[in-house]
Amino acid sequence: MTTPLAEPRAMARARELGLSVLGTTSPNPAVGAVILDSAGTPVGEGATAPPGGPHAEVTALAQAGERARGGTAVVTLEPCAHTGRTGPCADALIAAGVVRVVIAVPEPTELAGGGADRLRAAGIAVELGVERAEAEDGALAPWLTGVREHRPFVVWKVAATLDGRVAAADGSSRWITGEQARAAVHRLRATCDAVVVGSGTAVTDDPQLTVRDADGRTTGRQPLRVVVDRRGRLAPTARVLDDAAPTHVSRAGTPAELMAELFDRDVRRVLLEGGPTLAAAFLRAGLVDEAVVHLAPTLLGAGPSLVGDLGISTMAGALSFRIVDLLPMGGDVQIRLRPTRHTGGHQHTDGGS
Amino acid sequence: MTTPLAEPRAMARARELGLSVLGTTSPNPAVGAVILDSAGTPVGEGATAPPGGPHAEVTALAQAGERARGGTAVVTLEPCAHTGRTGPCADALIAAGVVRVVIAVPEPTELAGGGADRLRAAGIAVELGVERAEAEDGALAPWLTGVREHRPFVVWKVAATLDGRVAAADGSSRWITGEQARAAVHRLRATCDAVVVGSGTAVTDDPQLTVRDADGRTTGRQPLRVVVDRRGRLAPTARVLDDAAPTHVSRAGTPAELMAELFDRDVRRVLLEGGPTLAAAFLRAGLVDEAVVHLAPTLLGAGPSLVGDLGISTMAGALSFRIVDLLPMGGDVQIRLRPTRHTGGHQHTDGGS
Repeated sequence: MTTPLAEPRAMARARELGLSVLGTTSPNPAVGAVILDSAGTPVGEGATAPPGGPHAEVTALAQAGERARGGTAVVTLEPCAHTGRTGPCADALIAAGVVRVVIAVPEPTELAGGGADRLRAAGIAVELGVERAEAEDGALAPWLTGVREHRPFVVWKVAATLDGRVAAADGSSRWITGEQARAAVHRLRATCDAVVVGSGTAVTDDPQLTVRDADGRTTGRQPLRVVVDRRGRLAPTARVLDDAAPTHVSRAGTPAELMAELFDRDVRRVLLEGGPTLAAAFLRAGLVDEAVVHLAPTLLGAGPSLVGDLGISTMAGALSFRIVDLLPMGGDVQIRLRPTRHTGGHQHTDGGS
Repeated sequence: MTTPLAEPRAMARARELGLSVLGTTSPNPAVGAVILDSAGTPVGEGATAPPGGPHAEVTALAQAGERARGGTAVVTLEPCAHTGRTGPCADALIAAGVVRVVIAVPEPTELAGGGADRLRAAGIAVELGVERAEAEDGALAPWLTGVREHRPFVVWKVAATLDGRVAAADGSSRWITGEQARAAVHRLRATCDAVVVGSGTAVTDDPQLTVRDADGRTTGRQPLRVVVDRRGRLAPTARVLDDAAPTHVSRAGTPAELMAELFDRDVRRVLLEGGPTLAAAFLRAGLVDEAVVHLAPTLLGAGPSLVGDLGISTMAGALSFRIVDLLPMGGDVQIRLRPTRHTGGHQHTDGGS
């Protein structure tokens, strides 16, 4: 159960810290941690470093130093009790002398579990499940989906006109949306481990699929570029094959197969940028966890729709989402959505993803 | 030119008063007026009554009584100087002893013009053009469109899924949006003089097209129901022909012909609720002045699109709008838009409509 935290802003800040490293930590969770001194003043912050680097708690404790003694640690995920590439975070918290640990999400894996018990055994007060739903819906969602479903979390991004067209009748699609929305797509790519398109999009639009700044320069860490190309349609000169970022050309026959391939490559958060056919395949398979729709205030009256055939013939059968947020973006609109029920044949057990 | 008003809230309030009677004043403009006493305190408010009733200034002056003397009148439209069904408002303001009149929009017709001059001749300080654009874009837009273009102002309303579908593949369309959005449509109808559908919508959906409350009861003044039915497809038993409201069945062959018919019936603000074909005809004719789009967070993947063929084949040719406002509405979204350029062969001279 979610219970209120005496320092509610500390947990919100811990979630923000987790979000700030989303896309850089896989296969590890993007955790955020805040250390408060004995008076409740924030004295340290941390977020998960890339694999092999320190966990959030360790960085936050290092920043706090001696001020952590007698204080509180606020973390989005239960501190681990095992020694992996880094030592157990629970031991680091005990050594630092914190007297209270406030945790949003209990550790779901056997391997890393037991952190709360170890802390309690050391005489530390532990609160578990504080603002849990918010943390599960945030930066931890991709990792939790991986733990629970052994597949990556999928964000479907699409830009369309008001009448749901992703291109004009002649196939032209540049640009549906304005600069601000396009810049937001680059920021979104930076939060993902992989960007997926089908061979149709790769051939027609010849996108580079890199994270670029406003001047078109490739910036920072690049997600894996993935092209689903069963029939070998991709030309060797395609821009997606340049050396600006790694690329995986997949022969997967289904979205589930592709997700399994990517999961094995430590991908935990996928941006689906494919066309209507690929989007429909993922939606039919129940493999869209979040949708980011950029709507331009324009009408075309013809051209391909943003999603292909879903096998739905009645209004009652419509795939249903809930709007997570709604933002004006330049002259366009960004709508972020989560499915309200799953679209495939299986039921998810995961309320948080 | 628009210049700041010392009492900015008075003009904003006058605009609100005009909007509050939108749909009840045609063929007269929906004007709002506020009287401030000599200290700048609001002491009277008024809005245009239905045809034959008092104008906004007269109602506001009656409410203010002696407190108007030495005060200011703030009105959205230049007070008339002619005697129609009511006496000249300019004379009423002079008789009431106001010393200053602040006006948003100058009277554009010869017949009613001259009000500002008559006020000045009586020694009253007159400011013309204050917050003019806001007033022209608001409750006066329908009437100004009538004066300048001799046609009604057209609001196109459509409810669609995220992928721009107005019905499922089997034709089912109830309900795309939730209760709140549907209630908003009834409120929108109440601001219009006529509600227009094509025979296709009338036959398929058999709508009643009345203004109803949450319990489905017909409420208040009802707009004229208009069915475009060139081929006589409408059955005598259609609900739109019941006695809940007046109905006009039109044989007009083009949107312009229909608009001329309705203009002659004193219609100044039309709600276009027809299907994709009728919407496309109006858009192609440049006869959509505002769009109200209700988007449901659902996907169908098949079914008719919200607008039919517009004769557009390239992205560069897309009809372009600007978003006036964006509102979450229940689980749905309302997007209100105005065209950024007109869609027909003619150029409008009217910046305000």
